[in-house]
Amino acid sequence: MPASYAYLGPEGTFTEVALRTLPEAATRELIPYVSVQSALDAVRVGEAEAAFVPIENSVEGGITTTLDELVAGAPLMIYREVLLSITFALLVRPGTRLSDIKTVSAHPAAQPQVRNWLRKNLPDAHWESAASNADAARLVQEGQYDAAFAGEFAAARYGLEALETGIHDAENAQTRFVLVGRPARPAAPTGADKTSVVLWQRDDHPGGLRDLLGEFATRGINLMLLQSRPTGAGIGNYCFCVDAEGHISDRRVAEALTGLKRICLEVRFLGSYPRADMKPGGVQPPRPGTSDEEFVSAADWVARCQDGRF
Amino acid sequence: MPASYAYLGPEGTFTEVALRTLPEAATRELIPYVSVQSALDAVRVGEAEAAFVPIENSVEGGITTTLDELVAGAPLMIYREVLLSITFALLVRPGTRLSDIKTVSAHPAAQPQVRNWLRKNLPDAHWESAASNADAARLVQEGQYDAAFAGEFAAARYGLEALETGIHDAENAQTRFVLVGRPARPAAPTGADKTSVVLWQRDDHPGGLRDLLGEFATRGINLMLLQSRPTGAGIGNYCFCVDAEGHISDRRVAEALTGLKRICLEVRFLGSYPRADMKPGGVQPPRPGTSDEEFVSAADWVARCQDGRF
Repeated sequence: MPASYAYLGPEGTFTEVALRTLPEAATRELIPYVSVQSALDAVRVGEAEAAFVPIENSVEGGITTTLDELVAGAPLMIYREVLLSITFALLVRPGTRLSDIKTVSAHPAAQPQVRNWLRKNLPDAHWESAASNADAARLVQEGQYDAAFAGEFAAARYGLEALETGIHDAENAQTRFVLVGRPARPAAPTGADKTSVVLWQRDDHPGGLRDLLGEFATRGINLMLLQSRPTGAGIGNYCFCVDAEGHISDRRVAEALTGLKRICLEVRFLGSYPRADMKPGGVQPPRPGTSDEEFVSAADWVARCQDGRF
Repeated sequence: MPASYAYLGPEGTFTEVALRTLPEAATRELIPYVSVQSALDAVRVGEAEAAFVPIENSVEGGITTTLDELVAGAPLMIYREVLLSITFALLVRPGTRLSDIKTVSAHPAAQPQVRNWLRKNLPDAHWESAASNADAARLVQEGQYDAAFAGEFAAARYGLEALETGIHDAENAQTRFVLVGRPARPAAPTGADKTSVVLWQRDDHPGGLRDLLGEFATRGINLMLLQSRPTGAGIGNYCFCVDAEGHISDRRVAEALTGLKRICLEVRFLGSYPRADMKPGGVQPPRPGTSDEEFVSAADWVARCQDGRF
């Protein structure tokens, strides 16, 4: 197994910064790939141990390229997740003043996050989309544009300076990234975990989705993401990407997945992994009646009833 | 264990007729008791092997005396059920004509079933309640009343004749009886079984009853009876008597009971026993995804996911 992680490149983007927050990244070679698909394929064919890609954006929602890759093709598994607050810096060549700026550039995904700031501060600047924020910075370095929206960390790499930092239209704009590998035994539960699955309904009947969600609700499991994705089988045919609280080794989660496996056409397990969004002391105890101990003692009681000892 | 069954007396009532439809009754001494409570107490103290009592009436609903006895006190278990169609005969002393009848008698429970017939055929007759329909027949025999509503089978015992038979206001009027014993291993499943439980909610929150019913619905289990009974802890405090399709040895039923045991304050198991209401070929297959085989293979799949083999 090569000791390398593929990630969505180029270098100097938020993805690389997020990846470097993982302790295990320090001992791996980090290799940029040009797309989410190529990074995940590197894992599938064994070129890389794992791939690090964005999966959800607090402004735009689920990143469909990544979800669709996880939904189809050879099974992959999420090992870890990272949350990164996204704020932009306005990077310029040293000496440039705000009033000098006629053109700005960034990845199209940055646009909704800087639109208000632009309207207020550079209403006349012309927007040019770039392949990535890092690429926009490079094009500023080369003199093609006057300014780029990118992470502040990109300034040093491209010999630019940050004329303004902390630019973000939505408060708490965050992007969630995942480290994805081949199927393996999930890491042990930490007490604050998340389980991801993809669900395909057996047939489309009234209340069908409610039945699927009922498998979680009945066991007191909160959902953290529900994103429908077309199955490709025509308009109205969707599968559901679900992130649920808890670890597959929790009795309530295992039983919910068992129930889903029974009633769904197909279930794809995408992994159980530590939650990145936990605030200190933030783990809620399981709802009364859904702890592992309560599952065990209730099963004991049923066994006694089956046996006539009650 | 004494080879005797207690039953709600006196002799010559519908209860005795229903009891005699059970093959096992032929090998037991059948002992009438004056009340449901005294018949069940005979079981609790070991005077009788089992007790046979009415529990549900298709006209009046659940028979609360019986339900309340099963809900409280030392645990008992339902071994069998019997459904009996209830139609009345008008019993008179030989030679009596309809126009001779000035007074009629029966147990009060018979009244709603014969009211329309009386209005039409004997609008001027005076009603006198008796302790049982059999007792009413005895009082006719003794000359105290002119006619009694009772089972046609009671005529011979009291030297009466049936002036009219098949009297019933509601079509398909039936009474359900149960044979109740001490806790024991439930009889093996027949493929058309019923499971009875009593449920006490842990607290009274919005959707609380829906949560309890969800434990059945999530596993595709139909309910055949839901009857609330006051817990005695004040207005608004109820427990729920539930009859559900299936046997406690069915995986879907065992899992539903496990779930209820987890989330309820208390669950009382009242037994799994053959359904008496099956028409030929009437058993529905379990809803897709809820058969024992599907439970087993889904649990296997989850175990493989937990192990990283998927």
